[in-house]
Amino acid sequence: MKPNNTIREIGDALQSADSIWIIPHELMDGDAFGSAIALCKSLRKQGKTAWILLEDKIPDYLEFMDKGYCTYDSDLIPEPDVSLCIDCGDKTRFKKRVAAFEKGRITVCLDHHTTSRRVFDLNYVDGKAAATGEIVFDLLSEMKWPLDKEIAEALFVAITTDTGNFQYSNTTQRSHEIVIQLYDKGMNFSKVSAEIYQNESINKFKMESKVIDSAELFADGLVVVATVTQKMLKECNSTMEEAEGIVSKLRSIRGVEISVLIKEYPDGCMKVGLRAKHTGDVAVIASKFGGGGHIKAAGCTICDSIENVKRMIVEEVTEQLKA
Amino acid sequence: MKPNNTIREIGDALQSADSIWIIPHELMDGDAFGSAIALCKSLRKQGKTAWILLEDKIPDYLEFMDKGYCTYDSDLIPEPDVSLCIDCGDKTRFKKRVAAFEKGRITVCLDHHTTSRRVFDLNYVDGKAAATGEIVFDLLSEMKWPLDKEIAEALFVAITTDTGNFQYSNTTQRSHEIVIQLYDKGMNFSKVSAEIYQNESINKFKMESKVIDSAELFADGLVVVATVTQKMLKECNSTMEEAEGIVSKLRSIRGVEISVLIKEYPDGCMKVGLRAKHTGDVAVIASKFGGGGHIKAAGCTICDSIENVKRMIVEEVTEQLKA
Repeated sequence: MKPNNTIREIGDALQSADSIWIIPHELMDGDAFGSAIALCKSLRKQGKTAWILLEDKIPDYLEFMDKGYCTYDSDLIPEPDVSLCIDCGDKTRFKKRVAAFEKGRITVCLDHHTTSRRVFDLNYVDGKAAATGEIVFDLLSEMKWPLDKEIAEALFVAITTDTGNFQYSNTTQRSHEIVIQLYDKGMNFSKVSAEIYQNESINKFKMESKVIDSAELFADGLVVVATVTQKMLKECNSTMEEAEGIVSKLRSIRGVEISVLIKEYPDGCMKVGLRAKHTGDVAVIASKFGGGGHIKAAGCTICDSIENVKRMIVEEVTEQLKA
Repeated sequence: MKPNNTIREIGDALQSADSIWIIPHELMDGDAFGSAIALCKSLRKQGKTAWILLEDKIPDYLEFMDKGYCTYDSDLIPEPDVSLCIDCGDKTRFKKRVAAFEKGRITVCLDHHTTSRRVFDLNYVDGKAAATGEIVFDLLSEMKWPLDKEIAEALFVAITTDTGNFQYSNTTQRSHEIVIQLYDKGMNFSKVSAEIYQNESINKFKMESKVIDSAELFADGLVVVATVTQKMLKECNSTMEEAEGIVSKLRSIRGVEISVLIKEYPDGCMKVGLRAKHTGDVAVIASKFGGGGHIKAAGCTICDSIENVKRMIVEEVTEQLKA
């Protein structure tokens, strides 16, 4: 693995470039997109041709930030001086854009994930940064590229989403210090927060209510299981995509160690989402049913009735928690 | 209405006192309790007899902060030198403790609600403070009473809960500046956050589901109204305290400008919680019904049927939004 370049070296490469691809990871979150927007606008203000190249849809809650910075057309910059991947450090995180990325005369990586392997021409990976947005802030400061309201708001999105609103353990004093400086640019953080967090359909709310109403505790309250059926979705005019996140909410129930969400699909198969709080390892459980994932977040698909799936999963989970 | 005293005058009165009642408002939230805990511990460290006098149960999510600071026994301090109400400025906010409060040789109010009328011997009301916790921080700084980890964590609870994790429009640079200083005291903010936010009873979850299921949209979706009835609480084995926070969740429905939660009490009266998103001013609405609060968060009590209360509130809210 290469050593880090300096933030100045990255800045100089961008300063020398005329055209830049900015490539956030697939299934963008607030940090990937906010960082990309802030950098893209900054580069354009420096007179560069800069575009954010995407491969999938911008999530609804982040759409408000795109004011003409994004494209799906990989021919828009045929010969980029720089291709910069942001909030990721691995081509598997932007699979459909690798060919466009590789056209860059210089490839650059800006990231805060410690798993980033620094395999590009220039790399700056800071695992201590709570968000890649903090690194972009440092880059703009280093280059004396001035922030404006829009850039400040994009950086706020990056930092506030990746720190769980300044609650996750990755948050540092530096996160707060940067935010204080973003206020100076006149950012409307509460409007931005409303865009991100106060923008869910009532249908989603009602569907979630039904799902949580279905929740049952097992193993003396260590396990919670809830179900999303096609019937619930229909009744609430909601979609399975809107059920994303419920399994994490269930984990926040007092005393629960492992939360399970059984999602019924029209083909009669069940997708099972699993989350662990402190000690559980849901990757092991998911793998027993042909699935996989991380220790604290995993999933599998089982083609059986809801009741059977529930019974099988509860058995496995209880066995693990007893061991 | 009296003018504000200085923070120094409040501090001097506390410094001169031997015994102090600290009285947070009924149905305590994180700011009321966090501020009370921080002040109580600080006073004890100064050698004072200080107690937080309560009239209702500490909400579960705040209980971790009470390490022997709270009492329900109003005879514990028969002749307090100072009675200090915190995060409220009106005796109706601590009805069952008024007699004990009035025994104070000096009565003091520390609050950040602009509706506080400054009717006590000494008053310090700062409507610009995002949380009363910020005022307590200023008081401790002014008096050079040193913070420790526990005090810092209590102030973090106060500030983070009342700012909606630094997202509400009341948040200021000062809120972030104070938090930066709390880090210096070694506070474990992420552990505190888990205590507050990942520790909800399944009964509360189920009750919330029922309440959200009762939600109705009015005024072309600009207004949402939901109800918590005694029946719902009983069915879910939950309490009205656990309904705290639902009104803010309702505001996050897409398109909603004002959210209303009608809470039915056993005496047949309804406590109405109101939240505004961007343009609404719910303090005005609450004050029309004898209540008060902030522009974006206010409340009132109306003794009438749920249906009548709903009709009256929806009328007022709709009228304001149309204007």
